[in-house]
Amino acid sequence: MTTGRVEAFSDGVIAIIITIMVLELRPPHDATIAGLRPLLPVFGSYLMSYVFLGIYWSNHHHLLHAAQHVDGRCLWANLHLLFWLSLVPFVTAWMGENHFTTWPVALYGGVLLSSAIAYYILVRALLASPGNEVLAAALGPDFKAKISIVVYVVAIPLAFVRSWLAFLLYISVAVTWLIPDRRIERKIVE
Amino acid sequence: MTTGRVEAFSDGVIAIIITIMVLELRPPHDATIAGLRPLLPVFGSYLMSYVFLGIYWSNHHHLLHAAQHVDGRCLWANLHLLFWLSLVPFVTAWMGENHFTTWPVALYGGVLLSSAIAYYILVRALLASPGNEVLAAALGPDFKAKISIVVYVVAIPLAFVRSWLAFLLYISVAVTWLIPDRRIERKIVE
Amino acid sequence: MTTGRVEAFSDGVIAIIITIMVLELRPPHDATIAGLRPLLPVFGSYLMSYVFLGIYWSNHHHLLHAAQHVDGRCLWANLHLLFWLSLVPFVTAWMGENHFTTWPVALYGGVLLSSAIAYYILVRALLASPGNEVLAAALGPDFKAKISIVVYVVAIPLAFVRSWLAFLLYISVAVTWLIPDRRIERKIVE
Amino acid sequence: MTTGRVEAFSDGVIAIIITIMVLELRPPHDATIAGLRPLLPVFGSYLMSYVFLGIYWSNHHHLLHAAQHVDGRCLWANLHLLFWLSLVPFVTAWMGENHFTTWPVALYGGVLLSSAIAYYILVRALLASPGNEVLAAALGPDFKAKISIVVYVVAIPLAFVRSWLAFLLYISVAVTWLIPDRRIERKIVE
Repeated sequence: MTTGRVEAFSDGVIAIIITIMVLELRPPHDATIAGLRPLLPVFGSYLMSYVFLGIYWSNHHHLLHAAQHVDGRCLWANLHLLFWLSLVPFVTAWMGENHFTTWPVALYGGVLLSSAIAYYILVRALLASPGNEVLAAALGPDFKAKISIVVYVVAIPLAFVRSWLAFLLYISVAVTWLIPDRRIERKIVE
Repeated sequence: MTTGRVEAFSDGVIAIIITIMVLELRPPHDATIAGLRPLLPVFGSYLMSYVFLGIYWSNHHHLLHAAQHVDGRCLWANLHLLFWLSLVPFVTAWMGENHFTTWPVALYGGVLLSSAIAYYILVRALLASPGNEVLAAALGPDFKAKISIVVYVVAIPLAFVRSWLAFLLYISVAVTWLIPDRRIERKIVE
Repeated sequence: MTTGRVEAFSDGVIAIIITIMVLELRPPHDATIAGLRPLLPVFGSYLMSYVFLGIYWSNHHHLLHAAQHVDGRCLWANLHLLFWLSLVPFVTAWMGENHFTTWPVALYGGVLLSSAIAYYILVRALLASPGNEVLAAALGPDFKAKISIVVYVVAIPLAFVRSWLAFLLYISVAVTWLIPDRRIERKIVE
Repeated sequence: MTTGRVEAFSDGVIAIIITIMVLELRPPHDATIAGLRPLLPVFGSYLMSYVFLGIYWSNHHHLLHAAQHVDGRCLWANLHLLFWLSLVPFVTAWMGENHFTTWPVALYGGVLLSSAIAYYILVRALLASPGNEVLAAALGPDFKAKISIVVYVVAIPLAFVRSWLAFLLYISVAVTWLIPDRRIERKIVE
């Protein structure tokens, strides 16, 4: 079974998740620039989630490009990942509305952590699927995924001390991932 | 006529159905964990429907992968299935909001039953379409689909006695289907 | 330029239009069957539009399957068709909420008429695009499209006399189109 | 890495953006033609944004059709463009609700300007990606993109003098772009 339809379905889900988040940005009745100020945290929250979903889409793209085959287990590992990503609009809205206070920031981290674990499980499922030897060679030791999980585990309890500290750690993970996964690109070119 | 565009359109519709369900999870104004408690039944309802739609997508994927040709009748059998699936967000929201009481649980079962029948009709339409002999061989006697329909027919009246009993039966159907359709995968590999 | 991406984009837009219409079916707070009764006209309106959009998708599928090439004019003819279809959720909601009274039924007919004309323009644009001779042969005199336009032109003023009469005419058009476009299917098989 | 999945994802996002804008057209409770009058500016705003998004989709289609390869930088340049386009529904709703007054018109121009710059960056990223020599030859000096940016830069401050003047300039840019990008079409045919 080839990867075509898994990619198409995932593209669809991620595209919709990204786009419905913007529905939380409700236009104010006030037609001046002052009317937009209360929307700033909602916008910041949206921007953050957009970047995270962009990273997932980009990595998912690289990952499935290198994979040759998917079996039933991979389909469900992928649906599992999409489930956690589908919760992003909810936690984004909650965090934006409540100006990045403790619980919303912690729950946001929880969804990021669950997504990271789900991505890790998807990688394992793809590696276990026969015919994906190229992928195994391309991925190598996969440090970034493991470090991200560790950072989230540290950041979530930190949200109860200083929520902005947790948020800073989320951003630092995003920055690490924005550096594109050149490992796979390089291997395929060779 | 090949199956490509039917798959793409179905992927799109199912992806959107899954994602707009999450819009019912409205972020509470309360920024504490207590604020999330009233959302638990809505979340449970969402999780249930996500799993059901995941099963339909996964089976639809296997089914159309094995099919070689679609005719006009298959297009409409597919649109008929998507119609019932499009009602899932509505019954999911009604069931979640009303904490799994009688009528919402019964109607939810009705939509599941109609979807199962529509899926069965789609399988028949594909089998009747010329050039799908591989599919016929791959599907075999197709017990699971028939049993699911019987379980739904039993569960819906049960909702009027004990709604959680009906709900338990829905879950048991989901568990059966979570075991991937190895029949088709095996046949294609051979 | 091949038809692949025009199909993918149109599939996406039609899939979303179909699915967001269901958002108008707001779950009632009343958890009994009586709570659903006020939703019946909204549901009827949804069903009607689902069938119409299904017909457009299905015909669009057949049409672009037979076409080999699209030029810039075809892209815009297609975007023009999608524009009118994108207004379907609006008129559907207006008609459902107001129990099929005069103006909503007339405007609904106006959107159907505009969509039919836009579809006709798309067919012309595709025929004018070089390399689509198969399509020209397959389409033949194209009676149904012309008759539909005439019926809509008659039905819209009728809405101001008896709105149900106009509605009946819309349904009769839908029934005609539900008979699949065997002309194209036949030609391609030959 | 081929362009297939970037096209599919972009199609998905643009299709959803176009379609959710129509959700702002809320059906009035009044079932007469008078009830629709207050919606006219919202409709005008929607029409404008539909045309702009149609232009972006059409140009994006031509651009990626001519491109052969995308690297990690192109993926992010594309996500950057989609980010600005995802803000179109927000500014469209704000402008429509406030009858094209100063600030909404200026912000709308800001989003158009940012999208135009993001499109320009995407073109650069694609040209810098190895294997896209056909694209470089096809694009030529790329006057239109640069002139559009200049017009937006002029129009935005004008919104604070006369908002309709800024709006007129936006329309003039749209009209220029509606002339399809024949350069690429021609080159590919040759």
